[in-house]
Amino acid sequence: MTQELYERHRETLEQALAAIESREYWSAYSESPKAYDHEAAKAAFDSYVSGEFPLDQPGADGTVEAAPSPYGVSLGTRYQRSSVEALVEAAGAAKAGWRDAGPKARAGVCLEILQRLNERSGELALAVMHTTGQPFVMALQAGGPHAQDRGLEAVAYAYAEMSRHASKARWEKPAGRDNVVALDKTYHVVPRGLGLLIGCTTFPTWNGYPGLFASLATGNPVIVKPHHACVLPLALTVQVAREVLAEAGYDSNVVTLAVGRSEDRLSTTLATRPEVKVIDFTGSTANGEWLEENARQAQVYTEKAGVNSVVIDSTDSFSGMCRNLALSLSLYSGQMCTTPQNLLVPRDGIETDESHKSFEEVAQGIAGAIGKLLGDPERAVEITGAIVNEGVLEVAESAASLGEVVLEARSLEHPQFPDAVVRTPVLVRLEAVDEEVYGREHFGPVAFLVATGSTDESFEIFRRTGLEHGAITAAVYSTSEDVLAATERAAMDVGVALSCNLTGGVFVNQSAAFSDFHATGANPAANACLTDAAFVAGRFRIVQSRRPVTA
Amino acid sequence: MTQELYERHRETLEQALAAIESREYWSAYSESPKAYDHEAAKAAFDSYVSGEFPLDQPGADGTVEAAPSPYGVSLGTRYQRSSVEALVEAAGAAKAGWRDAGPKARAGVCLEILQRLNERSGELALAVMHTTGQPFVMALQAGGPHAQDRGLEAVAYAYAEMSRHASKARWEKPAGRDNVVALDKTYHVVPRGLGLLIGCTTFPTWNGYPGLFASLATGNPVIVKPHHACVLPLALTVQVAREVLAEAGYDSNVVTLAVGRSEDRLSTTLATRPEVKVIDFTGSTANGEWLEENARQAQVYTEKAGVNSVVIDSTDSFSGMCRNLALSLSLYSGQMCTTPQNLLVPRDGIETDESHKSFEEVAQGIAGAIGKLLGDPERAVEITGAIVNEGVLEVAESAASLGEVVLEARSLEHPQFPDAVVRTPVLVRLEAVDEEVYGREHFGPVAFLVATGSTDESFEIFRRTGLEHGAITAAVYSTSEDVLAATERAAMDVGVALSCNLTGGVFVNQSAAFSDFHATGANPAANACLTDAAFVAGRFRIVQSRRPVTA
Repeated sequence: MTQELYERHRETLEQALAAIESREYWSAYSESPKAYDHEAAKAAFDSYVSGEFPLDQPGADGTVEAAPSPYGVSLGTRYQRSSVEALVEAAGAAKAGWRDAGPKARAGVCLEILQRLNERSGELALAVMHTTGQPFVMALQAGGPHAQDRGLEAVAYAYAEMSRHASKARWEKPAGRDNVVALDKTYHVVPRGLGLLIGCTTFPTWNGYPGLFASLATGNPVIVKPHHACVLPLALTVQVAREVLAEAGYDSNVVTLAVGRSEDRLSTTLATRPEVKVIDFTGSTANGEWLEENARQAQVYTEKAGVNSVVIDSTDSFSGMCRNLALSLSLYSGQMCTTPQNLLVPRDGIETDESHKSFEEVAQGIAGAIGKLLGDPERAVEITGAIVNEGVLEVAESAASLGEVVLEARSLEHPQFPDAVVRTPVLVRLEAVDEEVYGREHFGPVAFLVATGSTDESFEIFRRTGLEHGAITAAVYSTSEDVLAATERAAMDVGVALSCNLTGGVFVNQSAAFSDFHATGANPAANACLTDAAFVAGRFRIVQSRRPVTA
Repeated sequence: MTQELYERHRETLEQALAAIESREYWSAYSESPKAYDHEAAKAAFDSYVSGEFPLDQPGADGTVEAAPSPYGVSLGTRYQRSSVEALVEAAGAAKAGWRDAGPKARAGVCLEILQRLNERSGELALAVMHTTGQPFVMALQAGGPHAQDRGLEAVAYAYAEMSRHASKARWEKPAGRDNVVALDKTYHVVPRGLGLLIGCTTFPTWNGYPGLFASLATGNPVIVKPHHACVLPLALTVQVAREVLAEAGYDSNVVTLAVGRSEDRLSTTLATRPEVKVIDFTGSTANGEWLEENARQAQVYTEKAGVNSVVIDSTDSFSGMCRNLALSLSLYSGQMCTTPQNLLVPRDGIETDESHKSFEEVAQGIAGAIGKLLGDPERAVEITGAIVNEGVLEVAESAASLGEVVLEARSLEHPQFPDAVVRTPVLVRLEAVDEEVYGREHFGPVAFLVATGSTDESFEIFRRTGLEHGAITAAVYSTSEDVLAATERAAMDVGVALSCNLTGGVFVNQSAAFSDFHATGANPAANACLTDAAFVAGRFRIVQSRRPVTA
């Protein structure tokens, strides 16, 4: 059965392996909403809303009710509350069988899980939308096929690393005239231990699948601990994974879901269990740093907060730049780790295709583009989605007091979900000296136009904030090859992915699986990259045996 | 020039890349003593003995005199004492140029360094011998060509990881009918920061080169901090590296030597510098754990102490087994991290080709083989070498009080070096209950014959001591495929490399570059393996840029 799954998905795996090498465009799963059955998805979603989520796993100890949707819809889903002891024990018992399955069989199982998740992308879209506040199309694409692509990419990386050397070898060393010393050697891939995925509240699947599938493919059973307000997308994922595992003849406890009440402190308890050897985390800097400091028995991969900059030096498409930035700032109300925060603009203005623009004209250009983009509330909410929680709302509402407001936030009424909290971005002008303000992350629909003395000072700010506070993305607009080259060198120093002169249909927020490396691990925003070799190679070890060749 | 070095060594690199994949026998450097010019080496060595070691690097602040040789020879070499501030500053200044050289040019420089080190293997042999106490042939082979092979292996792994994806790509995503969105992308390999190599006192080059060359190849300048009693082998290495770097047009401060007085506390000061991002360490568990706990800004790779077991269940070559173990225990007086310590033998004895042997007969068989191997002092010292320091001597001398002595240690007079301290191994019988004794590492010419209730109890002891205290090697002797398979599973659980039924010319202590993985990272003896993908992948990051394709 398991070899059969590998064979069934072999071509997909081979394409993924080619794609991570060429870095050219490739995707395994359609991002078109038309590819998925929304009626069936809606029916499935409705069935979860007020029922007990079907997941038969060990150690259930009462139930926990889901948090309400950011769209104001009541989600009454009840999840089994888990006993840490039972989960760790069950995962430990599943470990040897999963290890012994070997890289090929595990890759086959992972790809079958991903394919079935893909088939349920409609359900996942509604689950992501109603736990994160994402607009529907984003929830479908980022929560479904794009997340599945990221998971597949991690499987491909893991598979490549596990199979980069022979699993058996005959070693024959010349030993004097006509003689050899011969040994037969076997190399086993051995998982590090148990994996723990700590999910986030904004992109539970997109940020979660790389770690989940990297750990699974390398042989580590994974305990999935969703954010308490964002359980359903990962609960569905675990359900699918357990179903495939059981069908393929493995212990379904290779993947389990850990849901608790806040007083259970599941994340910290699980993260410091000696059996847990790999942890994947996306969330706040404080929680990420806590894990790095305290989960010392484990290899910890974190994505935390950052301060993303855009160096605006000059442009040959002023309107294109303004439109592009307007969408980048508005998309999902800036609740992306990739959203720009600090737009660094010389206070003397910039050269553009529409002649010189003063700082104020640049500010008004961007503000105007946002106004136009979000002018129609019905269309606007399909870009902004809803504010995910009170914390983000507070960040958004306090921003206006931090400087000179260039564009005020507006509250929009969502035509379908009247209780949803919707805010358009606020743009605030700051000066280069206000580093205390713009040097911190303001997660949400908040952007600062920082007036600098020159592009050189913009570089200094970009470097300093990136190195001290981290950054996941950076962008530059310039018509000068020298400035672009200097920005590229600054980005290498900061260790941040750079987008240059985006004026069309690609946005700095977007990161494409198989081609874009998401985060780098080289600055404080993240200690890992999704996905590179370092993200997978530490999840397993090689244990060899050797014996003399007998005639 | 630098592309020229890459081209000059390209074939060697390609062979190394093929070897780490096939894991078959391959070596780049001859291990035959005849391949090296001993007269020239002796003259060069003598020139260092009482002079100032020639190394022109920044921040010299007085000199430090070398420790005496374990062979009793006075080494009056004086080294420049280094200022940490000056070394870190110089390495930092060298970083950008070395990063920008790129993977190919760096590989070329590394291979040229290795080739020149190879040409100086005779000098390195004397340097290793007179700092570690190794016998001459071992010092030549392990300190010269085998260490160079390990360095080359690390370069190959690093090169493979850095070049596993395209350095540039055109990304073209279909966007509706006849349309594409196109981006040109560039992927830069960016080093983590500065590397620090903390050398050990027994295998300064063999254990040091993997980390040194892995860091260098991935773009990290490296500060080399030798053990205070074992400076010369790494000083020679740094000298050669700086010479090649300068000739190739790079800042020679890409590699520097850090020598200090013990009150300078160079290791701890350097290890906690924020600029130092990669640390390679071989040495005591206490120091390794200190680094893991305190050098939190860095990726730390450690090889520490372990307790190596041999499960003796049965054999079809009793005399071969005894001879093989005798050499394993005697080689370099057990001062190898790969030397077995605990020989686990059922107290009812074992089946052999010479009929059943009682526990006492097994003990006497091994003791007799050691006696025979080391019967002639003149030949014996070429196997045992000298005791490296007082600490090891104390371990050796206190062992007899720990249990029932099966074979007493003998002091041998070294025919050439009358002041050398030479000891043959002591064999001590313990019972399975004496875990407090055999559960600790006794580094030196000490082995325990542990009487167990059965091979199953031997497995339990093997698992428990390995998991709790770590192990670098394990071995088993058995004529039963079931027992061999069970040992292999136990070795996977413990995460230790296993050698089966070695009765001929291969010894459990030996680990061959390109084929054997030395240590695993999967148990407390080491958090890393020399060399696998995990050993290199965390030393660099990938920083990308992308821009729209312009017509």
